[in-house]
Amino acid sequence: MHSGRKQDDGERYRTILETAARLICERGYEGTSMQEIAAACRMTKAGLYHHVQNKEQLLFDIMSYGMDAFEQQVLDKVRDFPDPVERLRECMRLNIHLVTGGCSKEVIIILHEHATLTGEARAFIDSRKKNYVRFLEDAFSEAVRMERIRPVQPTVAAFSFLGMVLWIYKWFQPDGRLSAEQVANEMVELLFTGLVTPAMAAAGATGTPVLSIVPPKVAGGES
Amino acid sequence: MHSGRKQDDGERYRTILETAARLICERGYEGTSMQEIAAACRMTKAGLYHHVQNKEQLLFDIMSYGMDAFEQQVLDKVRDFPDPVERLRECMRLNIHLVTGGCSKEVIIILHEHATLTGEARAFIDSRKKNYVRFLEDAFSEAVRMERIRPVQPTVAAFSFLGMVLWIYKWFQPDGRLSAEQVANEMVELLFTGLVTPAMAAAGATGTPVLSIVPPKVAGGES
Repeated sequence: MHSGRKQDDGERYRTILETAARLICERGYEGTSMQEIAAACRMTKAGLYHHVQNKEQLLFDIMSYGMDAFEQQVLDKVRDFPDPVERLRECMRLNIHLVTGGCSKEVIIILHEHATLTGEARAFIDSRKKNYVRFLEDAFSEAVRMERIRPVQPTVAAFSFLGMVLWIYKWFQPDGRLSAEQVANEMVELLFTGLVTPAMAAAGATGTPVLSIVPPKVAGGES
Repeated sequence: MHSGRKQDDGERYRTILETAARLICERGYEGTSMQEIAAACRMTKAGLYHHVQNKEQLLFDIMSYGMDAFEQQVLDKVRDFPDPVERLRECMRLNIHLVTGGCSKEVIIILHEHATLTGEARAFIDSRKKNYVRFLEDAFSEAVRMERIRPVQPTVAAFSFLGMVLWIYKWFQPDGRLSAEQVANEMVELLFTGLVTPAMAAAGATGTPVLSIVPPKVAGGES
């Protein structure tokens, strides 16, 4: 997939992507012109076209930049966790920080303009998104197989995870009364220990979180 | 809020809303013209304007129709459940059926075109949405107060519930391998019993779901 990026001015291009992402995030893709993006970058339209082929290429590059950030800041950091529950918990925590932090506008654009791209570019972004769904499904399946969690349908679990995390951009306010850290902690516990009462947790005879009292088992054994 | 609807041809108007909702859902609000909506309704544009003032009024009426359906089919059915956990579980189940069923296009439009309405119309739809968030927060708070669930932050719990349920429109396929019923059952258990293992459930010494072994308490007592 050709990125349209010229190697010698990567830093400049990154600034353009950041600026364009901010505008598209505020006004939508259709509502933002190349003229406006150029002006916000303090460039002429011709100058902007020196860096980018066209508006769809720019959208594709913003989405790719967002997917890169997601893979570097989330997926790559948890991929090798041997325990699937710890892998999923840390993945949720990091993904929440990505959504509430500096990359929120790229995430919003990936989610909101999903039908705007066409052809090969759209298929490419879609396949990167699908990889994440598969990663989550695999981790839930593995956790069930290892009896680290109760049997759940992995697809429903994966999309529940995603729904909780990705919906955050609709309601979270960085300067609101809940911190990103608080949302991350609450949400991870909500999915992984559910809503069972303190009485239930006490039935496990320790003050530790419900899940941690079940030791990881070695994978491979049948049920 | 004036609805623009003429009382004597309510049925006709409902068909127009259904048709317009289908088009806007497929092509987006900006990508759908009144001319196209009229054609799909087998009317002239002048005929369409006999029923509706303008396109924004039409969008508002589609959203109101979706909110009416939601309130009738979900909220009104669970509002009076005395037990907050049963209220929330049934609410989630009914909302999932709404999202996966006949009203999915109105729901998509409410979610996707949230920034398209302006002024009073937007404030009115927003306030109906906020009522739902508050209903969920109140139910989670009440469940915590009654010790029916462990202490959770009610806002995070409410938006986790909403994220799981409303994200469904992004991935669920009515003719796919998962039925709406299966998604509803899985998702309710996912949030309300979490991922605790069968071993943990067994520690409660019964085969019944984790939550049901903790009897509801009479409200009012401190902690």
